[in-house]
Amino acid sequence: MEIQLKEDERIDQLMQYKLDIIQSPSVFSFSLDAVLLGNFAKVPQHNRAKIVDLCSGNGAVALMLSQQTKSSIIGVELQSRLVDMANRSIQLNQLEDQMTMIEGDVKEVYQHIPKDSVDILTCNPPYFTVSEASHKNPNEHLAIARHELHLNLKEMMAISAGLLKMKGKAYFVHRPERFLEIMDAMREVNLTPKRVRFVYPKENKEANILLVEGIKHGKDTGFKILPPLFVYKDDREYFPEVRRMIYGDD
Amino acid sequence: MEIQLKEDERIDQLMQYKLDIIQSPSVFSFSLDAVLLGNFAKVPQHNRAKIVDLCSGNGAVALMLSQQTKSSIIGVELQSRLVDMANRSIQLNQLEDQMTMIEGDVKEVYQHIPKDSVDILTCNPPYFTVSEASHKNPNEHLAIARHELHLNLKEMMAISAGLLKMKGKAYFVHRPERFLEIMDAMREVNLTPKRVRFVYPKENKEANILLVEGIKHGKDTGFKILPPLFVYKDDREYFPEVRRMIYGDD
Repeated sequence: MEIQLKEDERIDQLMQYKLDIIQSPSVFSFSLDAVLLGNFAKVPQHNRAKIVDLCSGNGAVALMLSQQTKSSIIGVELQSRLVDMANRSIQLNQLEDQMTMIEGDVKEVYQHIPKDSVDILTCNPPYFTVSEASHKNPNEHLAIARHELHLNLKEMMAISAGLLKMKGKAYFVHRPERFLEIMDAMREVNLTPKRVRFVYPKENKEANILLVEGIKHGKDTGFKILPPLFVYKDDREYFPEVRRMIYGDD
Repeated sequence: MEIQLKEDERIDQLMQYKLDIIQSPSVFSFSLDAVLLGNFAKVPQHNRAKIVDLCSGNGAVALMLSQQTKSSIIGVELQSRLVDMANRSIQLNQLEDQMTMIEGDVKEVYQHIPKDSVDILTCNPPYFTVSEASHKNPNEHLAIARHELHLNLKEMMAISAGLLKMKGKAYFVHRPERFLEIMDAMREVNLTPKRVRFVYPKENKEANILLVEGIKHGKDTGFKILPPLFVYKDDREYFPEVRRMIYGDD
């Protein structure tokens, strides 16, 4: 199959899953965060679950999940340019039967996906508040993906909780600076935080990424801080766990 | 100086500080938690700060802090048997000029220490709620130290915040299962959580201890998750950082 690449797009391979993912430095490239989220989320192997990935970008997380389950996966993304990239990646990997992209605002997602219908939800949302202007990217595509221009944390959590079935599970990747706000936003919509994993760039550095699992109407006992994950052993080498996520076991 | 040991008491040495600490397995022994808290808390070297250790037990944390500062330290402990042990440890280490123990209920601490007067506060409080009955120790001394029989988390936080000066710092050690509750209790009394460190028994285990620093009326930006601390390298050997806390640098 011939897939057309546009402008500065390239195909990156995620070796762990032998996936081809279309990227573009000027529009959207998936990052380590997506790889971490795609590995943190637990999906059932069977084909009976309904899985949704919000703020799906170029579909990297959804593509990774597709390799761990036979269930259907819907990605929701606002930017048509990214939906287009994701759709071509879906074709490239021949996943049309399993994966669907919805182009639209997450805030209007109920037009496409009924409330209380989703088993597993993932989201790698914009990290920065609008007021964190120093970080704001002049590139509109990247700014929307990184800043809460169209969707803020509370809105994202409310929609995630709304989509999930009772006891459905949500998985998020975010920044530790906003940890307390994330915990508050989750609890406000009865998405009980259950397991948190902090990711550290190096062994002796502060955490710079957090992964969290929430259960809709879960009991508020049994909150766990999972073993830490370190990314870099030194300036060049990944720790084995991260290397396996990217390159696979070989 | 002759210090009388009672019943099953023994003198343990904390080599890092060359401290002698009176312990008793049937009444109270300081644990790794105290060692971690005594090392996590930041105290100024000078003699002008006022430092308070609540739920002081046999005074282990306060004794450790005394080796890091010239400032005065007050320990507050409900159980007279433990205050007695702490007082004899203070004598044993000739720290009578720097350290004072107050025997009394933390909830009545304002009778002894004025509000808004403390620079640094530490507390290794009871970890278990009263309802966690399965853990309850039949030994009354140990039960009071471990269960919220006389002081619960919210009360402890309210008093800690009440004692501290504006921008004063509090340091707590507790259990990660109660992390969200701790964060809520702190914020409710304007003790802003600033730095959190999770302690893991081994590299691949869930965290079982948490250390947290709060600042009274601190800004709610700059929340940090510090590098993780692992206790055991294998079944017998401590990781270097923990070994140094216990045995010192040699």
